[in-house]
Order: sequence, then C-alpha cells, then structure tokens
Amino acid sequence: MRVGDRDLRTIWADGDRVAVIDQTRLPHALEIRHWRQLDDTVAGIRDMVVRGAPLIGVAGAYGLALALRADAGEASLDAAGAALLAARPTAVNLRWAIERVRAAVIKLPRAARADAAWDEAGRMADEDASTCAAIGRHGLALLNETAAAKGRVEVLTHCNAGWLATVDWGTALAPIYAAHRTGLDVHVWVDETRPRNQGASLTAWELQQEGIPHTVIVDNAGGHLMQRGRIDLVLVGSDRTTATGDVCNKIGTYLKALAAHDNGVRFYAALPASTIDFRLREGRAIPIEERGAEEVTHVTGADSEGALRTVRVVPAGARAANWAFDVTPSRLVTGLVTERGICPASETGIRGLFPDLVEAAAE
Amino acid sequence: MRVGDRDLRTIWADGDRVAVIDQTRLPHALEIRHWRQLDDTVAGIRDMVVRGAPLIGVAGAYGLALALRADAGEASLDAAGAALLAARPTAVNLRWAIERVRAAVIKLPRAARADAAWDEAGRMADEDASTCAAIGRHGLALLNETAAAKGRVEVLTHCNAGWLATVDWGTALAPIYAAHRTGLDVHVWVDETRPRNQGASLTAWELQQEGIPHTVIVDNAGGHLMQRGRIDLVLVGSDRTTATGDVCNKIGTYLKALAAHDNGVRFYAALPASTIDFRLREGRAIPIEERGAEEVTHVTGADSEGALRTVRVVPAGARAANWAFDVTPSRLVTGLVTERGICPASETGIRGLFPDLVEAAAE
Repeated sequence: MRVGDRDLRTIWADGDRVAVIDQTRLPHALEIRHWRQLDDTVAGIRDMVVRGAPLIGVAGAYGLALALRADAGEASLDAAGAALLAARPTAVNLRWAIERVRAAVIKLPRAARADAAWDEAGRMADEDASTCAAIGRHGLALLNETAAAKGRVEVLTHCNAGWLATVDWGTALAPIYAAHRTGLDVHVWVDETRPRNQGASLTAWELQQEGIPHTVIVDNAGGHLMQRGRIDLVLVGSDRTTATGDVCNKIGTYLKALAAHDNGVRFYAALPASTIDFRLREGRAIPIEERGAEEVTHVTGADSEGALRTVRVVPAGARAANWAFDVTPSRLVTGLVTERGICPASETGIRGLFPDLVEAAAE
Repeated sequence: MRVGDRDLRTIWADGDRVAVIDQTRLPHALEIRHWRQLDDTVAGIRDMVVRGAPLIGVAGAYGLALALRADAGEASLDAAGAALLAARPTAVNLRWAIERVRAAVIKLPRAARADAAWDEAGRMADEDASTCAAIGRHGLALLNETAAAKGRVEVLTHCNAGWLATVDWGTALAPIYAAHRTGLDVHVWVDETRPRNQGASLTAWELQQEGIPHTVIVDNAGGHLMQRGRIDLVLVGSDRTTATGDVCNKIGTYLKALAAHDNGVRFYAALPASTIDFRLREGRAIPIEERGAEEVTHVTGADSEGALRTVRVVPAGARAANWAFDVTPSRLVTGLVTERGICPASETGIRGLFPDLVEAAAE
C-alpha cells in the first residue's frame, strides 16, 4: 500500500535479506529492518516489530529459510521452528506456516532446501495479499450500497485490521481501500484501541498514507456516534471465529457490536478462512489472553521533540488487568466478509461458503 | 476522605484563605493550593485545579466571598460573578452557586457581606457533603443485597464520580465507601476513562487512599468482564438526568449500560437531585460538549523520574474528535440512587421521590 511516494508491503525479499517495516516505531518513524539470520526473525516476532497473525506466519516462514541457509539439516529445521514458536507462543498462524515450510522442503536434498523455503515464504506472502484483496472486493459491495443511497459512507473500525496486520491490503480495511480507489466518498472513524493504541497509531497512519479521510476517536465514543446517526457500517477484523459465527477480536469489539445492534447499524467482521476455527462451536470456549498490566498503566508516544517516551497514567503501585480480546456473539454480527464472499455469521452461512473446509474439519 | 494519614475534603476554609487539592497534579503528587483573592479562584476553576459540578459550585461561592472582601460593592459582586462564569461557561452549578450567594448577601450592609458570603459557601460545602453521604447510605443497600447472596461485591465504575468531584464522599463512589467502612468485601473495576483518564488517575487514587481493593482496566474491557460474570453492579455518576430518567454522563457510559443490559447486570446512576433537569423530557435534546482534539491525540503522565510529561499517540497531523458525554436511555438504567433514596429511572419513579421539585419545575 501507499507510504509516502512508495508502494510497500509489510515484508519482502530484499536480495538475500528479509525486509520488514518496524511497527514498534510507527506512527512516529518509518524504519525498515533487515533480517539476515534466524535470530533476527525470532527477535522481530517476539518484540512485535511485526505483528498480526497473517504477517507473523509469513515472517516465520522466512525465518526458517534463513535458518536453512546456515544449516540445512533436520535438527536445524526443528530448532528453528521451536525458537520461532517460543517467540509468540499463542500465534496459531506461526505453527501453520512452520509446518507448511517443513512439508515443502523435508524431502528435498539439503542443498535445495534453503532456496525452496525462501520461495515457499514468498508464495505465502503473495497468497496472503491475494486473499486480502479478495476480501476487499467482496466487502466493497457493502460500502457501495450505502454510497448509492446517501452519496457517502461513514465506517467505524476498531484496532488495526489493515495492511500492517497482513502482507498487504488488510482485512477490515481492505474494502475501504478498494472503495477509496474506485472514487467512493468514504470517511473512517478510527477507535484508538486501548491499551496498545493500534487504531491511533497504525490504522490512522495507514489511512493517512493512502489519503483516506479519517478521524481518531476514543473507544468510548463509538456508541454516541451511532446514536447520532454518524456511522453507517462497522467493519472489524477477527483473530478467531467459531464455526457458528462467534467473533473473537480485540477487546472492546463486543461493546461496538452492542451499540450497532441497538442503533440498527450493520456490523461486519472481515477475515480470511484461515481465521475460522471449524472445530469450535462456542465463542465462550475461546481462552482469552491476559497480557501485562503495564500496557494499561503506561502509555508510549512521541514528545514535542519527536522522541519516544513512556509515561505512567495511574497512581504508583496501582493494580491493572489487561485482557486482549473479547467475543462478540454471532447474534450481534450482521455478516462475515471473507475471500469467498459475504455470508451470515451462522453455521449455515459459513457452511454455505466453505463446505470443503467444514467437511475437512469434520474428519 | 482518607489521604495518607489525614482526612481531607476537596475544598475548605483555612484561616482567611480557601484551600483546595490541586487535581491537575493527581495522582502523581498531592499539592494543596491556597486562594487569597478572586483571581486565584477563577484561574483554579478555568485550569481544572478543581473540577466536578458540585465542587465547582462551592469553589465559585468562595470566590465571591474573596471578591467581596476586597470590595463589597454590587459592581464588584457582579464582576466577580461574570469572571467566574467565564471560567467554565457550561458548568450549571456555578451559576446556581453564584445566584445563591448573591441572594444571601445583597440585602446586607456592605461591611457584613464578605463574612456572610464566606459562611454561605461553608454551608454549601457542608450541604454537598451531607447530600453525598445520604447517596452513600441509600446506595449501600444495593451492595448489601449482592454481598448477602455471594459474600462479596464486584462493582464497575466509569470516570470519577468520587469525592474529588464533590466536596466529600462523592456520588457513585459514596455507596462503595459506605460499604467498605461497614466491612463489606468490595472490589472495584475502574474504567480508565479516556480521553482525560479520570478513572485511572482520580478514581484509582481515591480508592488507593481509602484502602479499597480495585483494578484499573481499559474502557474496552468492561463488556468482557460482564460476559464472564465478573461484575455484579455498575455504578456511575451523572452530569444531567432528564425528568424521564435518561442519564447524560461521561462518554462511554452508554456502552457499559448496553453491556450490563445484555448480561443481566444491574446498572445504577448515583446523583444529587440538583443534577436532575426536571424540565427536560428527552436525553437526545441534551447538547453534547465537544472538547479539544488534543485530549485524544496527547496523553499526560509521569515519566520514570516522576516528572509530568505529555506524549502524542497519533501520527503527526492526525485529525481527532472529542465528545465529552453521551446519553444512556432510561430503558437501560436499572435505577437512580439519590439523597432521598433509590427510584426507577422513569418519570413515575422520579416523581415519586421528588414531587415537590417536579411541581416547582412545572410552574
């Protein structure tokens, strides 16, 4: 996507190095990191230089390729996979990516493995970009409906489900990018998304770079805006969706879904099929990650000289708790926007779009 | 209330000076300011050294007394009133307080006016403390019910409706203080309350000083906690309540009311009768103050050396919007906790407790 006068992805092959945008510096600085060896990749994933499930998967695949370049033996491959998994133990996509690269190289002669892994990582990146572009095309229909009726569209989004969370295009923001490029008059309300402020930092930065009109609001404000008729459509991402359409996403998503329901505003989750857990029937069964309290008690930003600083916003010694996700029950979700189209957030709806995957999961 | 080993109010007469806690320094430092003349009071109200509708009213009354001490003429009184109103133009209590002091002194000889105003301000402070203590006694019943059933109570509160917003005791926190002092096992979930963080800074500090167990959470987290059965009762304040029970309060209150309703959790607003607008029938008619975008784009806190610093959390040049309040429709409010008791959030309920005030407003 656009960054200044360039077109960038979040991750790409740069000669024999892996290049990534350092997301810990955004929105205050655009810095590219280069990974030459496995350790660079492990540190980058652990320290959230790259984040977002799809992106972490591709980063892990490249990490394996770097490891195989140094030592193409099976022991090296296994150790690299273990080191990557330990960097973000809860990232499901990381395990999937590691298994896919392993399957692609394990039967090859040693001398061919590193190049094969490198190519496989590149294919995974391209596939992710295609998937997100398809989500954008399908979701565009939702924005077109409103634009046809009133000439413009006001979308609310929560957290960052943009291209920075994927390789390119994003999920929830993909339809917005597609709409903007077809000339639609679209304005985005950006939830700042405490505690990590991914909306205020990453989503606002993405939209600014693409030249899409947007306004940052606190997470508290979305309900009021819906009451006053200022939001036509809510579009969010998903970290995990059940086979019955319950949507697990960034903490606070549930509150926006309640407000949308109370005000007759359409609420969609945009997600690739890889996010659907076809074996899971109840959102309540999803374990919710509890993260460090310092994400709540401290805030990082740029001071007046542009230097990054961290400040404490609670009394010294205050206790805080930090759940990362919540679950929005399917009854509050108007629909799911996927790479195969839009479906109701229900078992029947999901089965209609993904009969093959439902069947595979049942085996 | 307790502050370290002392008992403090937010405002008090200290010899011939007015003493106030400087709320712009909390929770990072406890500093007492002394006002000797009207200008000190005007600056203190304007710069939010004191905030909270009841407290601002009492501060204004003391400001008039200070002005009359310098010049007890009518022109001085009028000029002082105008200067105070200009300091916080939207504070309804300020106008009420100024009119009350004026009525108390205008017929007196000049030499007696300053002392009479000083005494009237002191009475208003005592009355506010009594009103809040009564809210605490009535609200205590709600906590006792839950404690009787399960041995402990988990309360969620939003913003700061504690003693720092009043003279003493507070509104939403008054029942919690009453409960704690009767030995009830109570734990408070404290919404940080972006954008000004009154929960993270003021409410957490109040509870810490009183030794009441509490946990700060982001505003996004309350819905998840209710889904998981971790909240028994939501208690919030109100800036303005309609004659029909719609509650205008800090932005984000509506989202918590929706979550409470969706999960069968009781949701109460605690407020003095002076907050009820007996002439207003529709919450939607309440104009919502829009404040400066920098409250959203910038965050102030203490750095590692304890110095206050402000950091920017959005990209340079990002646009933000900042509505200060929202309106929770009465259908989502279980009841109102007032100094005369608890009533349903409805026209009938309010009339039952305040027939005299309803009648007076109808004239």
